[in-house]
Amino acid sequence: MKISKLLGERIKDIPSGAVAKSHILLLRAGFIKPVSNGIFTLLPGAQKVSLKIQQIIRNEMNKIDGQEILMPVVMPKELWEKSGRYYSIGSEMVRFKDRNNHDMLLGMTHEESAVHACLNNIKSYDQLPFMIYQLQTKFRDEARPRAGLLRVKEFTMKDGYSFHVNQEDLENYYQKVYDAYVRIYKKIGMKNFVSVSSDSGMMGGERADEFQLLIDAGEDDIVICSECNYKANIEAATSLIDKMQFKDEKLEEIFTGSAKTIEEVCNYLHIPSKQIIKAVCYAIPNDDTDVVICFIRGDREINEAKLKKYIGKDVVVKDLTDSDLVKGNIGCINLNINNATIIYDKSLEGLCGMVTGANKDGFHIKGVNLKRDVNVNDFIDISKVSNDDKCPICGSNLFIKKGIEIGNIFQLGTKYSKPMGLLINMPDGSQINPIMGCYGIGVGRCLAAVVEESSDDKGIIWPISIAPWQVYLCPIKTENINVMTFANNLYERLENKFEVLFDDRNVSAGVKFTDSELIGIPIRIIISPRTLENQQVEIGIRRTNEKVLVDINKIEEKINEIINRLSEMEN
Amino acid sequence: MKISKLLGERIKDIPSGAVAKSHILLLRAGFIKPVSNGIFTLLPGAQKVSLKIQQIIRNEMNKIDGQEILMPVVMPKELWEKSGRYYSIGSEMVRFKDRNNHDMLLGMTHEESAVHACLNNIKSYDQLPFMIYQLQTKFRDEARPRAGLLRVKEFTMKDGYSFHVNQEDLENYYQKVYDAYVRIYKKIGMKNFVSVSSDSGMMGGERADEFQLLIDAGEDDIVICSECNYKANIEAATSLIDKMQFKDEKLEEIFTGSAKTIEEVCNYLHIPSKQIIKAVCYAIPNDDTDVVICFIRGDREINEAKLKKYIGKDVVVKDLTDSDLVKGNIGCINLNINNATIIYDKSLEGLCGMVTGANKDGFHIKGVNLKRDVNVNDFIDISKVSNDDKCPICGSNLFIKKGIEIGNIFQLGTKYSKPMGLLINMPDGSQINPIMGCYGIGVGRCLAAVVEESSDDKGIIWPISIAPWQVYLCPIKTENINVMTFANNLYERLENKFEVLFDDRNVSAGVKFTDSELIGIPIRIIISPRTLENQQVEIGIRRTNEKVLVDINKIEEKINEIINRLSEMEN
Repeated sequence: MKISKLLGERIKDIPSGAVAKSHILLLRAGFIKPVSNGIFTLLPGAQKVSLKIQQIIRNEMNKIDGQEILMPVVMPKELWEKSGRYYSIGSEMVRFKDRNNHDMLLGMTHEESAVHACLNNIKSYDQLPFMIYQLQTKFRDEARPRAGLLRVKEFTMKDGYSFHVNQEDLENYYQKVYDAYVRIYKKIGMKNFVSVSSDSGMMGGERADEFQLLIDAGEDDIVICSECNYKANIEAATSLIDKMQFKDEKLEEIFTGSAKTIEEVCNYLHIPSKQIIKAVCYAIPNDDTDVVICFIRGDREINEAKLKKYIGKDVVVKDLTDSDLVKGNIGCINLNINNATIIYDKSLEGLCGMVTGANKDGFHIKGVNLKRDVNVNDFIDISKVSNDDKCPICGSNLFIKKGIEIGNIFQLGTKYSKPMGLLINMPDGSQINPIMGCYGIGVGRCLAAVVEESSDDKGIIWPISIAPWQVYLCPIKTENINVMTFANNLYERLENKFEVLFDDRNVSAGVKFTDSELIGIPIRIIISPRTLENQQVEIGIRRTNEKVLVDINKIEEKINEIINRLSEMEN
Repeated sequence: MKISKLLGERIKDIPSGAVAKSHILLLRAGFIKPVSNGIFTLLPGAQKVSLKIQQIIRNEMNKIDGQEILMPVVMPKELWEKSGRYYSIGSEMVRFKDRNNHDMLLGMTHEESAVHACLNNIKSYDQLPFMIYQLQTKFRDEARPRAGLLRVKEFTMKDGYSFHVNQEDLENYYQKVYDAYVRIYKKIGMKNFVSVSSDSGMMGGERADEFQLLIDAGEDDIVICSECNYKANIEAATSLIDKMQFKDEKLEEIFTGSAKTIEEVCNYLHIPSKQIIKAVCYAIPNDDTDVVICFIRGDREINEAKLKKYIGKDVVVKDLTDSDLVKGNIGCINLNINNATIIYDKSLEGLCGMVTGANKDGFHIKGVNLKRDVNVNDFIDISKVSNDDKCPICGSNLFIKKGIEIGNIFQLGTKYSKPMGLLINMPDGSQINPIMGCYGIGVGRCLAAVVEESSDDKGIIWPISIAPWQVYLCPIKTENINVMTFANNLYERLENKFEVLFDDRNVSAGVKFTDSELIGIPIRIIISPRTLENQQVEIGIRRTNEKVLVDINKIEEKINEIINRLSEMEN
């Protein structure tokens, strides 16, 4: 490829609005072009990387007997009604009417479709286990697309679905996929990735793990134990929390004036936030319940993912305007409200001497003893792990790191096979719904995550396994006829053996070096009048910054040597 | 791949509703699964073929310096407003509002998006020419999806866009793409394909050619000259028509009673249909014009594609209920109508002694002399070529054949680059809008077209270049332990060298043979106790029906020989 014809201009300045490193670098290096909020065109450089990542994924899926299929982007409502998700998924799913007024949708994921593909095709236990997967375009109408390819609306995804006669068989296969994912990340050159327990979210099901690339630019919070192997997405993480006890007193209503927030009440009463019972109110969209009131210790935050999972429905923060609830004074004593769901977080279990709202303006109640004064059936863990908590497994310190989710795997049980009526004949004559697993990797996010991890001030450093081109062929002082003749010949010589980006422009060496570092091609060959005098070229390695003069007859040999070295170093 | 785990059951009976051969065979062989009208899941067999076709296309596009990119499926309205197509394209384009109430659409084609990708990236004449292409999912809300993968709503398409400084440069490159397309069709094993002039349809632009696979199951009519090289889609075809002259008489109103249709009027007046001036009325959706009245010789049909192109807008047959026009008696004499567009077809030019409606119930007018009695500015060719017409180039007989459109290429001029403001700096300091070409191939339609052309009563005959598997490994009498031991070993032995579908089922030889012929894998290896006695297997070729006994040590050699032979024979 000659750079003079390559679609994708290099940009010097930081594009406005771009904050994440990968977003900035992919824009600056001419790899992506924004089309709309969260929607991008992949220019040739990015598409080359994307295809390589896809091929690595495909190879690994085929190795564990995955069968590649292609399911549709557009699906009829009926398919998603059977699982109930047509209604339970919110506005992130695009719905439209076709020309015949039929309800259609853009598939965000393909569990329903995967089961549909098996209907009438899979009937007998001896056809199981098997896994089908696809590499396909997904559209999710994200509320907040951000950070370039890290969080987009439209993306290419590998999604796979496996089918099993029992849980044991699923667990065996789940481990195989897990191992394949680890191989995939290594092959595309990722370093600092971990797997963590995760919330199964809209997929439902019993167990879920996600792979996270630990990196400061990540938007997920990952809870990691400093001692044992415990790792979890904060949405799913549990912890041991300190239980500071306060003096057990009798209930007493106290004036707190205009103090409403936790901070204001603490200041007014000179008590720590841990002594307050905080109330957080949610609404459930399209549900008869008026309000979900969550009580939690004042220093802790609600983990909405846990809350949603417990309720089994979506929640949004409740607007208390026009409500009977007294904002800032909601409390668990004398709370008279109809049609509410009330949940107590585990952080409150066994506490006394606590302060709660008095359910009237200007007043709180102190001396609350949860056991004595409140009728709680069950304390539910709906709180977010904090840095001060301890590991739920070993009790050691926890720390929270930022991560980019680069893939996830789920054990689904029969959540889809059952309502969709996929039945398997067993040897004993009975019929079962197969147990399913599902497995996803976003290709574009992996691409961007690699850039986050593998780049420097000057630009991207592509791992050799997914580099858009392996070699940057860079003649300088192109007005010198020997240089350009040699460069043209060398380009022809190398083109069929390696992927070469030929900088055939008549611009300064400085511009060429800057561009080559920004684009991040692993190997750079510089041809100058001076090197040619000695029948040599200079070959440099982007990752290690090494430079070496190589005899013009040994260029291919050297390139192969460097490719092998980088492959070993990066995997 | 073991057939016991393969997703895609073989079906014995013809699936209800399937008529086209490829539709029937792809369903029966377990290659596709219908999801909704015109929407399919490609099961593993079909996806394997699709990927091979895609790779053949990709290789040929890269050979002519195409740069692969990926543009989005979902695009904002704004992009399509600039070209005007947001409004000019009808309900085949899906439009929806995103979560922020923003108008979005599903891209049916990507001219606008391709130009957008170049904005700020391409500025100077020396960056041209270049071509960008993608392999991507398209959704078109077809009014009448039919025939399985031949006409669908959702499909994978290769679409390419080239940019040039002048028409000559476009024409040079257009020929390169043309040649690449010919190579693609040959490589995927198509035989009887031709290129024909075509209507540029919604693309606009100056010249268009399409590739057609000539086959009875096709839904396009292709006009072909029996002598010279003239070939055109009937939508774009022109012809020489016979000009039978009738006696020139004076105008006279005659009673025709309830005779309304051409046939009825002919019978009533005992004249040939060629003597009648037929009126056909159209409406233009969303346009101020009330009616478009087309006059044409009574024996000929309107070519709506030509009509649309002439008017520059979509047309639909006009409902004359509540109209001032007298259905069955509309004529070109004494036609008093406001706000109408009136078009005379070339078939009427110079005629006399004709019969036209009298614009009142029960009457026609005879003796019409077009030159004397009607004020026609221009006779326009809006008629459909018929079997009796002659070649517009050489005057020889024309014949009409059925074809499947397997690709099309267009010269677009500046239809997109101009309204979207893509400007190129020229050496003389001026700026131009680049001239564009665009080039499409539908992958799934090619797959189905191959099945139409390459199949027999028993099933599909895949060309070796795109066969989902090259070898069908078929042990029979599997209860014989020697057979299965040998088969398992041979599967392991061949698996890394060829693509093998291993029929590991414990079913009768008849079922296996029927399935192998239906699935259409080029090479079949039969292992039976009898062949093994002589240390042999039987190797058969699906296309030629040849069978040969091969020494068990020479199986790989023989397979390679057959693959080479088939490759030569099929390309």
